[in-house]
Amino acid sequence: MAGKLTGRKVLVTQADDYMGPQSVETFRQAGAEVIDDRTDLTEPGAAGRVVAAAGHLDVLIANLAAPNHHGTTVADLDDGAWASMFDIMVHPLHRLVRAVAPLMIERGRGKIIVYGSATPLRGIARLAAYTAARGAQAGYVRSAGTELARNNIQMNLIAQNWVESDVYYPTSLQENPKFQSNLKREVPLGRLARPEEDTALALFLAGDDSDFFVGQVIPFAGGWVS
Amino acid sequence: MAGKLTGRKVLVTQADDYMGPQSVETFRQAGAEVIDDRTDLTEPGAAGRVVAAAGHLDVLIANLAAPNHHGTTVADLDDGAWASMFDIMVHPLHRLVRAVAPLMIERGRGKIIVYGSATPLRGIARLAAYTAARGAQAGYVRSAGTELARNNIQMNLIAQNWVESDVYYPTSLQENPKFQSNLKREVPLGRLARPEEDTALALFLAGDDSDFFVGQVIPFAGGWVS
Amino acid sequence: MAGKLTGRKVLVTQADDYMGPQSVETFRQAGAEVIDDRTDLTEPGAAGRVVAAAGHLDVLIANLAAPNHHGTTVADLDDGAWASMFDIMVHPLHRLVRAVAPLMIERGRGKIIVYGSATPLRGIARLAAYTAARGAQAGYVRSAGTELARNNIQMNLIAQNWVESDVYYPTSLQENPKFQSNLKREVPLGRLARPEEDTALALFLAGDDSDFFVGQVIPFAGGWVS
Amino acid sequence: MAGKLTGRKVLVTQADDYMGPQSVETFRQAGAEVIDDRTDLTEPGAAGRVVAAAGHLDVLIANLAAPNHHGTTVADLDDGAWASMFDIMVHPLHRLVRAVAPLMIERGRGKIIVYGSATPLRGIARLAAYTAARGAQAGYVRSAGTELARNNIQMNLIAQNWVESDVYYPTSLQENPKFQSNLKREVPLGRLARPEEDTALALFLAGDDSDFFVGQVIPFAGGWVS
Repeated sequence: MAGKLTGRKVLVTQADDYMGPQSVETFRQAGAEVIDDRTDLTEPGAAGRVVAAAGHLDVLIANLAAPNHHGTTVADLDDGAWASMFDIMVHPLHRLVRAVAPLMIERGRGKIIVYGSATPLRGIARLAAYTAARGAQAGYVRSAGTELARNNIQMNLIAQNWVESDVYYPTSLQENPKFQSNLKREVPLGRLARPEEDTALALFLAGDDSDFFVGQVIPFAGGWVS
Repeated sequence: MAGKLTGRKVLVTQADDYMGPQSVETFRQAGAEVIDDRTDLTEPGAAGRVVAAAGHLDVLIANLAAPNHHGTTVADLDDGAWASMFDIMVHPLHRLVRAVAPLMIERGRGKIIVYGSATPLRGIARLAAYTAARGAQAGYVRSAGTELARNNIQMNLIAQNWVESDVYYPTSLQENPKFQSNLKREVPLGRLARPEEDTALALFLAGDDSDFFVGQVIPFAGGWVS
Repeated sequence: MAGKLTGRKVLVTQADDYMGPQSVETFRQAGAEVIDDRTDLTEPGAAGRVVAAAGHLDVLIANLAAPNHHGTTVADLDDGAWASMFDIMVHPLHRLVRAVAPLMIERGRGKIIVYGSATPLRGIARLAAYTAARGAQAGYVRSAGTELARNNIQMNLIAQNWVESDVYYPTSLQENPKFQSNLKREVPLGRLARPEEDTALALFLAGDDSDFFVGQVIPFAGGWVS
Repeated sequence: MAGKLTGRKVLVTQADDYMGPQSVETFRQAGAEVIDDRTDLTEPGAAGRVVAAAGHLDVLIANLAAPNHHGTTVADLDDGAWASMFDIMVHPLHRLVRAVAPLMIERGRGKIIVYGSATPLRGIARLAAYTAARGAQAGYVRSAGTELARNNIQMNLIAQNWVESDVYYPTSLQENPKFQSNLKREVPLGRLARPEEDTALALFLAGDDSDFFVGQVIPFAGGWVS
């Protein structure tokens, strides 16, 4: 994989969270120049400033993560918890793409990879706000990805679930026998994905070999959805 | 169909817009007591007040419509146009369900039907904000519908496209020869749906015969998606 | 529902098996003239003869059922068991449609409903032959349904799972506590569908109200897929 | 990519047809030992013999191609043309997997990649036999892939369309202006895939980085489905 992205400039957002640290490592190992941005993107102007400061980009990795509030019923889901999902994961996605698209259109190429979720593809109870926000991301990628394809920009979403992560699967949960038996039952492969398996998919999508993927929502879930 | 919903109380939101008028007519013809609400639901407290005023409901018809801004590129899609999609179609959906769910759970039954869109299932260029908002609705229904199924509440979404409507297909567009040839090419059935075909599906989903549908996103698009 | 199909002629195949008996009852109650055919359709010429004998048809109910061999691994799945799935469920479907399509095209309308399966939408281990055959049905309906839509013929498939049936859920299985807890866990609605719920969907698809559905694979599975 | 599969043994079936030649080249460049088999697999015993002769395999590339009979209506689709689709593309797939699975299970790992089609995901008129057979492949992969995942065997299907190929897109067709405008309209990316883009996906699926993909039907169609 070494050298696969030599000379390419990559922006990873929320670089400290979720898939951020592993993305930075994987893309650097592949030879890319990686900007590991840590800006809070919930503030409306932030995304535009981050992209403007980065200059031209070959690859945007939209890594937008929020705690998922698992366990809250629809009856108990208040406006604040609801809005935070969209503020963290949905609105910044559009602002990032809006800022980066004109630059990529001008250069006639570009790759945008969104770390999303498989939950909008298969419903999980007590996860309504998170699933709605992830569904918005998926809808956005389907439309904007179709639009940008005309300009040779490939935008795709990794619809993941069951990926190792401190945010969603803390060690205490992973060590819980009930979780383990649930994992065996729900995930045909019978284990969580390692973060580097997830970023290997992102790297594949960032490279020249995957140009035929556009506007696509790609399940990455060990067989949980297919 | 007459009498199919006799004695059932049905709330139709945004009753003047989109699928509202035909829904009111179809459900009244089926014998239901229909509340044709016209409240602007973008104000945060509005949905809760409308549901509280309605009292117990057998059926909630979440009819939430916005102009779709078709033609705006991602680069030109400003924060205001973006936010309005979510303010009109997404946030009120949760607020309506949050208000109505406890009442339906208490009674041990209920039906929630969302008029949504097929666009998150098949990407259309220059429709990113609309598709993202409709994708949020679909994700929401998948999760909340799964959750509420446990309480014998059936919540489903009609993922429609190519349905006659003044909002999306004004007469001037329908008479445009280019639109007509596009319609023939894109829609296997070769025509738009009549509004009463759409509300017939809603009526089916509101009745006792369709209890086995839960959390489902049902394409209704003349074969455009399947 | 009474009278909904008055004057319509309906052919139900394999009328003694699977969804056959309930289909005959439901469609007769709706006023249709029902031909409850019991011919073994595995013989190549049989489907053509059954349709020829029936004369013009308003509705074809393709009810094609086989024991599902659940539990057989791919390594143990011999050519005979494999072929029988296709002989019973796949080849007769095409032969029925090939025979009935010209008659429906000539009259400018017709409805074809296939009782299929949700298993090609979500993989189940040790069910490979059955799932492959059901996947062939789904693919067939997508293509042939798109083709026949041009002639105002609506062909759709009910992608069902978890529907009460002596073939797939014998009483002994339904009474098994392990099955019951599995049912609660896997099916959000928490129960099997009653056969009359399944045939109510078929009746909806056979009526005039559902003309906008074409070439569609419609999940009917209590939320197991959505 | 060089060396990615060094020391791995790969069997490519129908090595002269469809994706065969490019697969052989791509996998050899990646360092694999490639068996480029040309056996006619329609004869029932053939698949078993080919696998037995190959000995242990790290990767099976199930490349099974037939002319697609595009243009034949369901009314004109005779039993011979119908059966040939299943004889060439469906039955050999199971026989290959049945032969190779026990060897891979014994070794505790293996990769199976099927070159399939996106047509069962989006219906095309006058393509019923082909789409049914491709749908059978997809159903098979969903079930068998779920089953084999338990043994750390990853089986996935590339659901492709619009990939350069002498079988499906001969030069005469590609040069046809009507085809070209259709291509622009139907495929968001606006071009056919190069064969080496398709085999790059196969190579990704054959490598260690993609172990979390199991039983999956992966659209590869330039945005035609997503």
